[in-house]
Amino acid sequence: MVNSRKHAISVTRSEDFSAWYQAVVAGADLAENSCVRGCMVIKPYGFAIWERIQAILDRRFKELGHVNAYFPMFIPIDLFEKEAEHINGFAKEICVVTHHRLEQRDGKLVPAGEIENPLAIRPTSELIIGESMARWTKSYRDLPLLINQWCNVVRWEMRTRMFLRTSEFLWQEGHTAHETKEEAINEALAMHKVYEDFICHSLKMTAISGKKPNHDKFAGAVDTYTIEAMMQDGKALQSATSHYLGQNFAKAVEIRFQGRDAKLHYAYTTSWGLTTRLIGAIVMAHGDDDGLNIPSAVAPYHVTIIPLLQNGNTSKDAIFDYCEHIKNSLPDGIRVLIDTKDFSPQNKRWDYIRKGVPFILEIGSKELGDHTVSITKRAQNLARYTMSAEEFRVQINDLLLEHDETLGEKNEKSCTKKINDSIKNVAELKEFFAENRNGFVIAKWSGLAKNMEILDEMAVSIRCLPTKQSGMKGKCILTGEDATIDAVFAKSY
Amino acid sequence: MVNSRKHAISVTRSEDFSAWYQAVVAGADLAENSCVRGCMVIKPYGFAIWERIQAILDRRFKELGHVNAYFPMFIPIDLFEKEAEHINGFAKEICVVTHHRLEQRDGKLVPAGEIENPLAIRPTSELIIGESMARWTKSYRDLPLLINQWCNVVRWEMRTRMFLRTSEFLWQEGHTAHETKEEAINEALAMHKVYEDFICHSLKMTAISGKKPNHDKFAGAVDTYTIEAMMQDGKALQSATSHYLGQNFAKAVEIRFQGRDAKLHYAYTTSWGLTTRLIGAIVMAHGDDDGLNIPSAVAPYHVTIIPLLQNGNTSKDAIFDYCEHIKNSLPDGIRVLIDTKDFSPQNKRWDYIRKGVPFILEIGSKELGDHTVSITKRAQNLARYTMSAEEFRVQINDLLLEHDETLGEKNEKSCTKKINDSIKNVAELKEFFAENRNGFVIAKWSGLAKNMEILDEMAVSIRCLPTKQSGMKGKCILTGEDATIDAVFAKSY
Repeated sequence: MVNSRKHAISVTRSEDFSAWYQAVVAGADLAENSCVRGCMVIKPYGFAIWERIQAILDRRFKELGHVNAYFPMFIPIDLFEKEAEHINGFAKEICVVTHHRLEQRDGKLVPAGEIENPLAIRPTSELIIGESMARWTKSYRDLPLLINQWCNVVRWEMRTRMFLRTSEFLWQEGHTAHETKEEAINEALAMHKVYEDFICHSLKMTAISGKKPNHDKFAGAVDTYTIEAMMQDGKALQSATSHYLGQNFAKAVEIRFQGRDAKLHYAYTTSWGLTTRLIGAIVMAHGDDDGLNIPSAVAPYHVTIIPLLQNGNTSKDAIFDYCEHIKNSLPDGIRVLIDTKDFSPQNKRWDYIRKGVPFILEIGSKELGDHTVSITKRAQNLARYTMSAEEFRVQINDLLLEHDETLGEKNEKSCTKKINDSIKNVAELKEFFAENRNGFVIAKWSGLAKNMEILDEMAVSIRCLPTKQSGMKGKCILTGEDATIDAVFAKSY
Repeated sequence: MVNSRKHAISVTRSEDFSAWYQAVVAGADLAENSCVRGCMVIKPYGFAIWERIQAILDRRFKELGHVNAYFPMFIPIDLFEKEAEHINGFAKEICVVTHHRLEQRDGKLVPAGEIENPLAIRPTSELIIGESMARWTKSYRDLPLLINQWCNVVRWEMRTRMFLRTSEFLWQEGHTAHETKEEAINEALAMHKVYEDFICHSLKMTAISGKKPNHDKFAGAVDTYTIEAMMQDGKALQSATSHYLGQNFAKAVEIRFQGRDAKLHYAYTTSWGLTTRLIGAIVMAHGDDDGLNIPSAVAPYHVTIIPLLQNGNTSKDAIFDYCEHIKNSLPDGIRVLIDTKDFSPQNKRWDYIRKGVPFILEIGSKELGDHTVSITKRAQNLARYTMSAEEFRVQINDLLLEHDETLGEKNEKSCTKKINDSIKNVAELKEFFAENRNGFVIAKWSGLAKNMEILDEMAVSIRCLPTKQSGMKGKCILTGEDATIDAVFAKSY
């Protein structure tokens, strides 16, 4: 911890990235650890970001024909047995409900009422949703089924970090069933593209999209597509995945339909999901040593207005009225908070800096008299300006564009220099990742899971095989064999 | 079951109300039983109603200053021990997670990895949210805390019915903390009023609002306020409750703050909730022997358009274009579906009748040639009209008002005659509820839980003490003692 407090967050990214992350999550009031092992509380300000994410994605899913539904959180254990790869992938982290009552014994509450067939809590819902789809699919006319669900899931974690890895988290999970293989692959790719657009364009992150290597696919999938976003420390964060499941799950739970040829066929299914960990990604992509920065698309507030009441002899009411006037003058879609709480303006300003509100206005008797606003631009190193209230009204949409572009440019600049495509062998790879150095290495890979222990030792993994392949021939960085596949190597969250 | 199929639903309300209910839920595609004991699948059409309910209430909550957040679904058992009344009320229906892993043993999956301190799954969140509030509340300046959460909860049920009683259900739970008793009581009453407005005005139900008798309050509450809606069979359905919790929970989890007097005080808290069972209430309040009827506020679609392609020689494209034209001509906020699926128009029409879409349009070459629409008005006994497309466009908002008024009037008429306020003694009460007869009896009650076995025998309970009290003196219907309290007696869901 630094003693001379130059920044709103007491530890800087360069000093200790991990401690900085926790400090921003706490300082921006996004979340806190709860009294429940491995579970977090998403506080109102953090949840407001999730609500913005939900609103944008939900609208996009529906435009593409998807509908929401809700399926049981409990999954009978024997249903899991139906897809061997799937259960192997998840068995180690599944919470199980075994009792349905609490009883007082010796002055202590204990579980009672044993459940004959214990219930797993969903780590993901392919099987329980597939089980319903099997009932809903009689004819090819019933297809495609395009379902989405917003819910909580549980994957027991031993080492947890807020947003990034918690035992319970929130997500959306899309599940679709199709008549043909081609349609299902197109669906998985289309949703992969929706995620990419959202993460790279709306959220201004730098990411590489591609396919997971076979040894790191979703348990039960034929192909997994992923968006690997780069954090400011050079590590990768898997931000959203889309799976083409082939007929694997359809066969496990009997999703069959009468085809155009009057014969019975298994459907082809997909699934795709994005979780609250994306909020952690926003922190690590755009945060700075003063706290959070948020792209305008998901910012709970674009503008906060702090009334300055302590100095000057203008009446409180006149200043409040002027604040209301500014708020009401702004165009639809601009989210504004006037903070009238009984705390000092100074504290409020630092609070909103930590929270990453794009524009912080301070409004006192001077601003009221001059018809101006004093504005702090969060993304531009807290630069302070004065402009007329009318200018602010007219320019607010451009100012938000500028805010987003600034975040995007900073992020791109920070990330680009951490991407290396000139590494040719294991020695160079080890050198690149030595001493806690990080970044994305794009290099040739044979496509076979050979010599993976070289990566394991460095805690590096193949994050994806980028969609944009160079097509050039070369030597596999791990084995020296001839190779044509480009792969991204990185440490990850 | 009736063989001559006069209606879209094969059993009528008068034949078997309970079987009719299940048939409407199935026929309108609202929900289905799942493979998990006591848990249902909320199908897309049923979930779309819930999304409308969420949108309306969420906006209202936020207008009143509430913010959403998310708290762990797991609650350590020992946290429950902190409020004795609360745990006594819920202990019998709490699901408990005891293991965090599945293992293969003798070719069978079994729970493994025992959890040292078993975790309850939330049946409600007063304690886990209060535990956070205790951290967030330092000074009176931090109050009020106005939090809401949309989530799933679990209360193990032995006998379940779709929407009305399932082991897992969805709800919103508001939790607030206040500086003074008066503020907290006002909050509970304000949210009670929000529910009443929504249920009685937006959803056009007939309901009596009031306070629960002491012996039937929420476990741990000082006062519980309830909306008791009447179903068409004369039974009551508790549709939303608001609780003034006094300092009970604040003391249990130490929600304390430094007051204006610089001393430490316990906060006063409230909680309030509304669940997916309200969808069951809509079915039983407005459904008829042809299926569902839905008030326009929560109808997934106001209008469905069925293209008629089989007769006439007009091209398919021209009819589709005309359908699109009608859809696009309607004002913002009108929700329209054009059903182009490959099923017969006849089947589609009956499907939307069962689903309770307010207006079903059939559009073929005749309508295209005449610039008209053929319309079925769902609430008006499926009356069919033809009107010009232009008239339909101009009148659609009035038509929806008429639709809602029709539902409201039908419901009021059906309910009013089942309310009896002239019953004076136990004999008359028994007569009223004899032989499966139902309704609301408004009668005097002493306010003491005496002779309650009279009610138990009839499966009748005191639903509420209406907010509107007559103030008249009389004799308690159960004990003959002097009494001033009016109470509502009914059977319930």
